[in-house]
Amino acid sequence: MMRGVYCDGSSVRLRRDLPGPETAKGEIELKVRAVGICDTDLQLARGYMDFRGVLGHEFVAETADGRRVTAEINNACHGCPTCLAGRPRHCPNRTVLGILNHDGAMAERVAVPPRNLHDVPDSIDDHQAVFIEPLAAAFRVTEQVDLGPGVSLAVLGDGKLGTLCAWVARLTGANVHLVGKHPSKLALAGEGISTHTLDATAALARTFDVVADCTGSRTGLATALGLVRPCGTVVLKTTVAGDYAVNLAPVVIDEVRVVGSRCGPFPAAIAALADGRIDVRPLVGAVYTLDEAERAFDAAGAPGSKKVLMRVGGSG
Amino acid sequence: MMRGVYCDGSSVRLRRDLPGPETAKGEIELKVRAVGICDTDLQLARGYMDFRGVLGHEFVAETADGRRVTAEINNACHGCPTCLAGRPRHCPNRTVLGILNHDGAMAERVAVPPRNLHDVPDSIDDHQAVFIEPLAAAFRVTEQVDLGPGVSLAVLGDGKLGTLCAWVARLTGANVHLVGKHPSKLALAGEGISTHTLDATAALARTFDVVADCTGSRTGLATALGLVRPCGTVVLKTTVAGDYAVNLAPVVIDEVRVVGSRCGPFPAAIAALADGRIDVRPLVGAVYTLDEAERAFDAAGAPGSKKVLMRVGGSG
Repeated sequence: MMRGVYCDGSSVRLRRDLPGPETAKGEIELKVRAVGICDTDLQLARGYMDFRGVLGHEFVAETADGRRVTAEINNACHGCPTCLAGRPRHCPNRTVLGILNHDGAMAERVAVPPRNLHDVPDSIDDHQAVFIEPLAAAFRVTEQVDLGPGVSLAVLGDGKLGTLCAWVARLTGANVHLVGKHPSKLALAGEGISTHTLDATAALARTFDVVADCTGSRTGLATALGLVRPCGTVVLKTTVAGDYAVNLAPVVIDEVRVVGSRCGPFPAAIAALADGRIDVRPLVGAVYTLDEAERAFDAAGAPGSKKVLMRVGGSG
Repeated sequence: MMRGVYCDGSSVRLRRDLPGPETAKGEIELKVRAVGICDTDLQLARGYMDFRGVLGHEFVAETADGRRVTAEINNACHGCPTCLAGRPRHCPNRTVLGILNHDGAMAERVAVPPRNLHDVPDSIDDHQAVFIEPLAAAFRVTEQVDLGPGVSLAVLGDGKLGTLCAWVARLTGANVHLVGKHPSKLALAGEGISTHTLDATAALARTFDVVADCTGSRTGLATALGLVRPCGTVVLKTTVAGDYAVNLAPVVIDEVRVVGSRCGPFPAAIAALADGRIDVRPLVGAVYTLDEAERAFDAAGAPGSKKVLMRVGGSG
């Protein structure tokens, strides 16, 4: 028996009667140290993906022999044509930790495939380590789009993912602008990033080489299409569940490239945290224990919240 | 005074009282020999772009000194940042022949900027020459997406543009599939192209490296997203006016790239017609005179019609 945060498709609650994780199929069991609450978790709690199980895919844990680790979240089969084509994150047979047919890390223990493990260097504390997964997702953009000096990028959305994307883009030398609604969150962007409230972007219409939509909003794409230059690129970093009305004629007329972007490279994220090129500490919000999970979810769902963490085990 | 096909934003009609084209701003006047009716013309006739003026942007004409020519349709300023960045087709100050603030070629005479002219070789007759503009648009895809042996491409839509895109893709050595509703039109694809009716594509779901939507339909994008493989590319070749409901979550989850595609390189199209690598003659439908314009538009709007042409002047 163990404690864990269970999603039943319409709500989440702490359960104390969960069986330990299954470690069939060669998976190993980790003792969870800390786990973050992500906007995806909030969506899953409302029924997105119709997920039933333990939530949690941003975490740091330890192995039986005491190594501090995190793990990539896509558990691929490594045998199908998609995997053999070099795209295991898109394996059609995959499970995804805490998202799709696999229990996650908001529990005392979690099972993961050993090949998904990454060691966490001592220079990255547990609170920072929880950001490895979303930071990897931000690095994904640099694999898909040419950024660098001479490239202008607008990131839409001043939430955690938007800020991480802006910070990663800044590492490339790109001219980075962060566009959001919350002056207090825009202020976290730091040096080298221009910040704008959404209503102040009219003069920037049709000027950006790249616009990354991190808003999670139905209006994000239309805003992005208004800011990108002809033949520019819009990166969709956040999903909007279900159908919604959008005018795609500008994509054709302006020959815009719209690129979906999801999970990214853990090694790049770990390296950037380890050597301090990315400092996520300004994004850490309240820290709860696992027993306080329901309060933690309430805090994570509050408008403008920073990253809410839960301590599970370990010395901290 | 001259004859021409005038669009008033809700219908088209032949007028005999039009002034000749303005040739201010360095434009020169051409005598039109033949002009095609395109689906865009049918949309303009129903109010798309709110265009008022002479329609026609697929044409062959002759200069005052008797050269047979055609012309690119985007009239750029060649002085703004977009033009200077090498994207004159996207010039924000542009006019577009028969589409945006510039009279087109469904008239006895048309004015064009001299730098937009391309000579039409003798090996391309007038009826074939009308296809240079749409064929150039098909070649645009090869500038935006890597095609070639080892790349599988599905073209959605067995209309003129879809067939042209399939033919151009075949030149690259790609594995080309044409998906449409009309067996009679699919039969025009010819050797080296696999053809499928839409209801026979279930087994092909999530397999294509590239899917080009040439349907002009609100369902085209969703169909394309169902056929493209993870991390593949969807090319939007046709516009759908206005907002419509679409589920873009698959773009993010499957990291699909959606690329808008519009006008393309005339020299590539002219070369392929001149040396017979592309033979558009199977796509030529009824040929009318300019005086029969209203009948010609009715014919072009009939379901399953081939390319409807109008003869204007010249010896044919």
